[in-house]
Amino acid sequence: MIDKNQIVASFKELQDNICSSLESLDGEGKFRQDLWERPGGGGGRTRIIQGQHIEKGGVNFSAVHGDLSDQMQEKLGLQTKDFFATGVSIVLHPVNPWTPIIHMNVRYFECGKNVWWFGGGIDLTPHYIIDGLAIDFHQRLKAVCDKSHPDFYPKYKEWADNYFYVRHRKETRGIGGIFFDRLDQSVLSKEALYDYVMNVGQSFVPIYTQQFSDTFQRDYSEQNKAWQLTRRGRYVEFNLVWDRGTKFGLETDGNIESILMSMPPTSTWTYRHEPGLIEKETLTKLIKGIDWTNERPSELA
Amino acid sequence: MIDKNQIVASFKELQDNICSSLESLDGEGKFRQDLWERPGGGGGRTRIIQGQHIEKGGVNFSAVHGDLSDQMQEKLGLQTKDFFATGVSIVLHPVNPWTPIIHMNVRYFECGKNVWWFGGGIDLTPHYIIDGLAIDFHQRLKAVCDKSHPDFYPKYKEWADNYFYVRHRKETRGIGGIFFDRLDQSVLSKEALYDYVMNVGQSFVPIYTQQFSDTFQRDYSEQNKAWQLTRRGRYVEFNLVWDRGTKFGLETDGNIESILMSMPPTSTWTYRHEPGLIEKETLTKLIKGIDWTNERPSELA
Repeated sequence: MIDKNQIVASFKELQDNICSSLESLDGEGKFRQDLWERPGGGGGRTRIIQGQHIEKGGVNFSAVHGDLSDQMQEKLGLQTKDFFATGVSIVLHPVNPWTPIIHMNVRYFECGKNVWWFGGGIDLTPHYIIDGLAIDFHQRLKAVCDKSHPDFYPKYKEWADNYFYVRHRKETRGIGGIFFDRLDQSVLSKEALYDYVMNVGQSFVPIYTQQFSDTFQRDYSEQNKAWQLTRRGRYVEFNLVWDRGTKFGLETDGNIESILMSMPPTSTWTYRHEPGLIEKETLTKLIKGIDWTNERPSELA
Repeated sequence: MIDKNQIVASFKELQDNICSSLESLDGEGKFRQDLWERPGGGGGRTRIIQGQHIEKGGVNFSAVHGDLSDQMQEKLGLQTKDFFATGVSIVLHPVNPWTPIIHMNVRYFECGKNVWWFGGGIDLTPHYIIDGLAIDFHQRLKAVCDKSHPDFYPKYKEWADNYFYVRHRKETRGIGGIFFDRLDQSVLSKEALYDYVMNVGQSFVPIYTQQFSDTFQRDYSEQNKAWQLTRRGRYVEFNLVWDRGTKFGLETDGNIESILMSMPPTSTWTYRHEPGLIEKETLTKLIKGIDWTNERPSELA
């Protein structure tokens, strides 16, 4: 039977492997590690890279425990307060505007003796949507999901479309990906879900390597860079206004520096920024419901 | 008897006067005006300046009417739905890190035949707190308040301290100022409150002129500029996470470009940014409860 110690060990190993692969990809930057402790119990390993190609990236592991607040207990609909939570979270902001921002999270939660669930996902925020790379991204996610259950990809893809939606802009944050939460024995066995979540985590390096390798050496103009900074502003808006994870962290005295490692290194807000033609093309694709696993998505016709 | 038409006319005139004074101060930038209409009724005049000293500034007027949502009606505790609201809102982000960010708002709200109130305030967010200028700012606000009621300044200064608080950073946004809301006949007569709010509005130009003139030509280093961009990041965090006005606008399909004119032109998030000694001094003063009207505030001793 999978227990939390094994999950913690696997998540730590995942963090180690991802950090070492990202250092290789960047070719120059090295992760700086900060260990932190949570006053209520547990702690984490925050790792930040500022490299030549990855302008700012965070790969964080944490494992915390203690008692839930009354408010949190009610919100989660739980019978007991003693919780344990562990996870790995990643956000990478690249230098090159043609390389997408990527986000990944895998997490495991326990409360009392009988309640447990897994959650997580991977989603992509290209400053410029390149159809071939969007298709590659979603096809790989679908392949990972299909190993566990044929319903997972369509269901969690839709969940990501809905979750990563910048409501006040009426646009998706990027091209989505997969998002899932509270997967428990009603979905699959604990072992099977553990395998699924670890497969998602292990898919991060090949998925991002493809996105990165295809784009990091592309030439870019000042206009491309300006657009990247504007899109990063939207990323900030989503994270601070709508992202439940970020809001939860900020409202409950989480580790601020670790939570806000997702913020871009620099971003701009220009009043009524006028996108050019190529930028406008990306904007038309920031909508829900595109089937990116299809080589010729009919929604783009 | 003061009626809403007169308030609208006064607010429009205030917007005109402030814009013309700011163009003089900047010496180069001119306001660009966008007229907008609200589908539910009314509209506004958004005016944006991008000048040589004011990097990005907005001076907005709006007057809207219609029916409140059920949710809003309940939140405000009102008996009827038909509302009218008008106001002037300003946010200025200067080029020079020694010049503070300033924010001002005056507003008037009516619902049905009998319910009305005024609200507003001015607050200052220096990237570097210069004691003399902080004192000048608060002394001028106190003088404006004292013309209407001796309780106003202490009360609304405390309100500002509490309102402009970045909870997750455990620091105030800047040095505060005054903030007030729902001032009605229980406080002073409508005429007296109109006079008060107009006095606050008219104090904006002399107050900002003092801050601007003393700082806009000061030399600054790359370190100063980097600190400014970091402090602008905090400004973004406050506005998107905690500011009720911004959140209300974003959640109720307001005019996005007009609401987010308060966003800085550029801002940065550096993981665990290490402030220098001068920057640290400013941080020690980002706390509630400093009496800035006192030439030697004991809290700073």
